[in-house]
Amino acid sequence: MAQITIKEIASMCGVGVSTVSRAINNHPDINPETKKQILDTIREYNYVPNNSARNLKRSESNTVAILAKGISNPLFADLIQSLERDIMDKGYLCVLQQVEEEENEIEVALRLEKEKRLKGIVFLGGASHPKAEKLRQLPVPYVICTVDAAMDEGLDNYGVVSIDDEAEFFRLVDYLCNLGHRRIAILTAYAHDTSIGKLRLDGYCRALKKHGIEYDESLVVRMDRKVQTYSIKNGYQTTKELLESKVPFTAICAISDTLAIGACKAVFDAGYRVPEDITVTGFDGLDMAYYYQPSITTIEQPLSEMATETSRILFELIEDKGGKKKHIFEGRLREGQSTAPVK
Amino acid sequence: MAQITIKEIASMCGVGVSTVSRAINNHPDINPETKKQILDTIREYNYVPNNSARNLKRSESNTVAILAKGISNPLFADLIQSLERDIMDKGYLCVLQQVEEEENEIEVALRLEKEKRLKGIVFLGGASHPKAEKLRQLPVPYVICTVDAAMDEGLDNYGVVSIDDEAEFFRLVDYLCNLGHRRIAILTAYAHDTSIGKLRLDGYCRALKKHGIEYDESLVVRMDRKVQTYSIKNGYQTTKELLESKVPFTAICAISDTLAIGACKAVFDAGYRVPEDITVTGFDGLDMAYYYQPSITTIEQPLSEMATETSRILFELIEDKGGKKKHIFEGRLREGQSTAPVK
Repeated sequence: MAQITIKEIASMCGVGVSTVSRAINNHPDINPETKKQILDTIREYNYVPNNSARNLKRSESNTVAILAKGISNPLFADLIQSLERDIMDKGYLCVLQQVEEEENEIEVALRLEKEKRLKGIVFLGGASHPKAEKLRQLPVPYVICTVDAAMDEGLDNYGVVSIDDEAEFFRLVDYLCNLGHRRIAILTAYAHDTSIGKLRLDGYCRALKKHGIEYDESLVVRMDRKVQTYSIKNGYQTTKELLESKVPFTAICAISDTLAIGACKAVFDAGYRVPEDITVTGFDGLDMAYYYQPSITTIEQPLSEMATETSRILFELIEDKGGKKKHIFEGRLREGQSTAPVK
Repeated sequence: MAQITIKEIASMCGVGVSTVSRAINNHPDINPETKKQILDTIREYNYVPNNSARNLKRSESNTVAILAKGISNPLFADLIQSLERDIMDKGYLCVLQQVEEEENEIEVALRLEKEKRLKGIVFLGGASHPKAEKLRQLPVPYVICTVDAAMDEGLDNYGVVSIDDEAEFFRLVDYLCNLGHRRIAILTAYAHDTSIGKLRLDGYCRALKKHGIEYDESLVVRMDRKVQTYSIKNGYQTTKELLESKVPFTAICAISDTLAIGACKAVFDAGYRVPEDITVTGFDGLDMAYYYQPSITTIEQPLSEMATETSRILFELIEDKGGKKKHIFEGRLREGQSTAPVK
């Protein structure tokens, strides 16, 4: 293959070779528009910098990793696309790594950093109380996205971008209580969940308390460990069992839209209607909840703003070396057709 | 961090250091059970091989890349999880790379191979007639998965794992014709699509022909370029426009389950019922189609078998160096509640 040279890239963009080099190496001393034009040209012609100076520079790493806990989580799909674009626009390579449910995402990051010498890390999902002694071992800046993680005071060189999971779930259950529901089942994570499941369950409890409703363990339905976490199928199975248990309830609030869709289908298959017989709510604001029949009432996370903020913070940390940034976004209650006042 | 050593791994597994090394380097001369035990231990203790011999070996690369055209495609989520597990079980690192809609996946692969020195590549999605002169430049084996790609005779060192897109779509439309439908709209890809969209449209045309139904361009609905490809929203928008056009039809067959879900919602929002007024079908066999209300009739791809076969072929190619393997799986018509005989 006749590989295009850095000189040809420079001449096409009407700049010198050193400017192209600055664009590639993410040097601050370059006009942003020029840089964008150069990086676009590089991409268009598939130019791969491969001279030795560049390789030297590269051994210092130009890779940013995205670690997603559950790549099949549809919530992450749009985030990943947007993050990848931002990372590549900055002249970095982007590596996406799946973290299995039973894996610790910080350990995966430590391993990956050793193998790939990363420049920065984005965590999608993960623990709500990540272990400080492990995070401290990470030699590069990182941003935790979509979990309102409680960070140890001694930590530095990180960002957190999220909604307030507890407060938003409180908002949703408060809304259900205001519709008159008092027997509200929750479809939540495993008993010892240490991530968003715990935070959202906390919000549920606080809303019940506010409305003087006693917490009833028989209305707390945990995901089925034998079925994929947060899958539609998991919501279906657990709701089916709840219905069969004959425990009375008028509403189900699921901690994700996927679980809520499964819940609706179980309600239909049992011969009931949503929302006439049973009200169902989700969480996250996925398209599939919007287009479900009936469309599902949910809390919408501002994903596109969250993605932009995540990469903005990450590159601020990479460039400035250090700092703690936390940006908690506000969710939005999106009313669908799946909720109705109690009869 | 007190890094665990290869000696400790060996002693924990009750084997010699050379056996651990064989497991890591994927040497054929090792008992598969011993190998699995060693790799499990390595993962459990986050052992990172970092002696110089290993580094030498590594510069030869132990990375396999998965290139997914449209990472938000829910069809790929399960495939990716299963492929990643297989790749890591073989002792390789796995890199996942998103390919944008407008990008050429082979060019992305060539670039990535230069940067990362890959050992093998899996393509998810992509062109149905990939350019031979580009594929020939790939210095490592690759498997194209989920596209029944027509490969140039001169190519070698590759695999194709797919269903027969044309034949399976034919099967679906044939089924609709047998239900008495003659005005069948198709929700398909752009006019110049060169991937599965083209193959599935071919199957549609052949089924019409078999049943003596004339091809009617006004029933061929193309995805909206302004909306994300294969998204639920795209199915919604295009079906909404089709309904507003007042072109008469009794069934819609979409080339993906996501488009079919959007189509159903547009039908509901226009005040019609599925399937009493309009029959709708999808394609792929996603969970979200199964749990939709009504559940959507679709063609199920045997994804888990396809994933296993893809990694099996890839490692066969990596180990044997060379060959052409093609495995076309049979799809399955999964009847849901979204189809009914024409009235």
